[in-house]
Amino acid sequence: MTIFAVTGCAGFIGSNLIDRLLKNGHDVIGIDNFSTGQNRFLEEASLRCNFRLVNLDLLDLDGLKLSIKGCEFVFHLSANADVRFGTDHPRKDLEQNTIATYNVLEAMRSNGIKKIAFSSTGSVYGESPVIPTPEDGPFPIQTSLYGASKAACEGLISAYCEGFGFQSWIFRFVSILGERYTHGHIFDFYQKLKKDPSCLAVLGNGKQRKSYLYVQDCIDAIMLAVEKADEKVNIFNLGVDGYVEVNDSIGWICQELGVSPRLDYSGGDRGWIGDNPFIFLDTKKIQALGWRPKFDIEQGVIRTVQYLKNNEWVFDTRGGQ
Amino acid sequence: MTIFAVTGCAGFIGSNLIDRLLKNGHDVIGIDNFSTGQNRFLEEASLRCNFRLVNLDLLDLDGLKLSIKGCEFVFHLSANADVRFGTDHPRKDLEQNTIATYNVLEAMRSNGIKKIAFSSTGSVYGESPVIPTPEDGPFPIQTSLYGASKAACEGLISAYCEGFGFQSWIFRFVSILGERYTHGHIFDFYQKLKKDPSCLAVLGNGKQRKSYLYVQDCIDAIMLAVEKADEKVNIFNLGVDGYVEVNDSIGWICQELGVSPRLDYSGGDRGWIGDNPFIFLDTKKIQALGWRPKFDIEQGVIRTVQYLKNNEWVFDTRGGQ
Repeated sequence: MTIFAVTGCAGFIGSNLIDRLLKNGHDVIGIDNFSTGQNRFLEEASLRCNFRLVNLDLLDLDGLKLSIKGCEFVFHLSANADVRFGTDHPRKDLEQNTIATYNVLEAMRSNGIKKIAFSSTGSVYGESPVIPTPEDGPFPIQTSLYGASKAACEGLISAYCEGFGFQSWIFRFVSILGERYTHGHIFDFYQKLKKDPSCLAVLGNGKQRKSYLYVQDCIDAIMLAVEKADEKVNIFNLGVDGYVEVNDSIGWICQELGVSPRLDYSGGDRGWIGDNPFIFLDTKKIQALGWRPKFDIEQGVIRTVQYLKNNEWVFDTRGGQ
Repeated sequence: MTIFAVTGCAGFIGSNLIDRLLKNGHDVIGIDNFSTGQNRFLEEASLRCNFRLVNLDLLDLDGLKLSIKGCEFVFHLSANADVRFGTDHPRKDLEQNTIATYNVLEAMRSNGIKKIAFSSTGSVYGESPVIPTPEDGPFPIQTSLYGASKAACEGLISAYCEGFGFQSWIFRFVSILGERYTHGHIFDFYQKLKKDPSCLAVLGNGKQRKSYLYVQDCIDAIMLAVEKADEKVNIFNLGVDGYVEVNDSIGWICQELGVSPRLDYSGGDRGWIGDNPFIFLDTKKIQALGWRPKFDIEQGVIRTVQYLKNNEWVFDTRGGQ
């Protein structure tokens, strides 16, 4: 039994992770500022006596130092996870990702906590010339403020490992799907189709190739890596061994919703500035530990649509508590 | 004729750069907070009517926005350049490098300025498995807070190029030598030998292999790259085509000073935590533009010692104005 702190505990991945940790008998200190996190994602956790919730913004360094006192391992999942609208508010990625991660590291240092797992992203590769992209692919050129900020966080974490004897597990995710999904293309398409099932506006030409991973597979991989990988800095790509076109995903969503909209493409090979037309990560490294995803992309998409059908409240509360 | 802004204009490289720009007939707005910059480095520049000095800290975003109004190109050289003592004050690299660079980019954006040259460092490669290390070497794992912060700056700059139509020239330097050098191993050795010429304490085993570049060669390369390279993001390693051992450098310094100290090694293959025992950058890319260094490492070391001999005042004012 370990005492974990989990930042972003009321978010999509964070809340699924704490449910797993709690189920495994660990003590969990959950931290969230509820800027996008949902109290309803913590309903199960709140019933357990091994869970303690702290409502805190990570920019409050003093509060953070107090909050994680006594814990042994930090899962740092809190972030501004919005890659598409980064240019609308560049300060957000700097503050909520880079500076917040610095604060987490400093709070850990002042408490003598030295183990951290971090949710990074495949976006740190920019538009890699090597696909599928391995963890040690070419030095990337960042193409989004989100990717740049996550790469900055990775750099800080690695430097703390070298300079202060920390140990880290850094996970570069593809997009994650599944229960408590509140953000991304399925969310957007679902919302649009709900409003008008006869027509769907699609950013780009729909041929963008993307990879996805089901949230429980993601958490399996995280738990396994933390247990088995023991380098100073352990970096893992997490994704399935393949990709689909946005058009494939649209097909599954529409089928699941029983709609046949006209598709209006905005055109071009990118959905927005900084959109990466081809994301596919090499996952040999995590697979070498024995992990395999149990769900493929189609199953992940369908489960996500089913979740949204059963939880339409997430469309109303998005961005609020 | 272009109107340039140069941050860190009173520093080692900055002051040499503005002298070159002014000599070439350009208008220069020099910005420095004189935390480590030296007024005496600006004596030549101050006599020219095409130079304007602004005493400003880059953390003052509003002041920065006003300061660079009307300029067309920003050389962003200001930084906490101290790699060795990063773990003594981790906030310094975050603020003076990452956040300051974010401010420079935001000040440029608000003024419609879209061209930036940036002094990065070979430290962004961490301990690369590929030596000599090319610009597109393997995705690095950061080993110092300094390297991590410079990598974060590079990421921000590249993301602004993609997101806001900026164009950038990013230079990854080896250690720079020459006139106005105020920081680094020659500075430290000179100071120690001045105090006690009979004995020299050396961090590590003296066998660390490092590469150096003479400051005027560095500025030649910068000017050439800015003139000739026209990608969205232009990244260049800058260094000579070789390396020396710390012991070689000690030999040249002692010879130039006419001393024969006993050498006391602290031992180990690293001088300090995060010290990289082998730095050697692949410079084929800048050489392809026609650049060659005019001075080798030995000449660079000797010129630096000669400069220090003629300017011992730098030891008294270091860190002050």
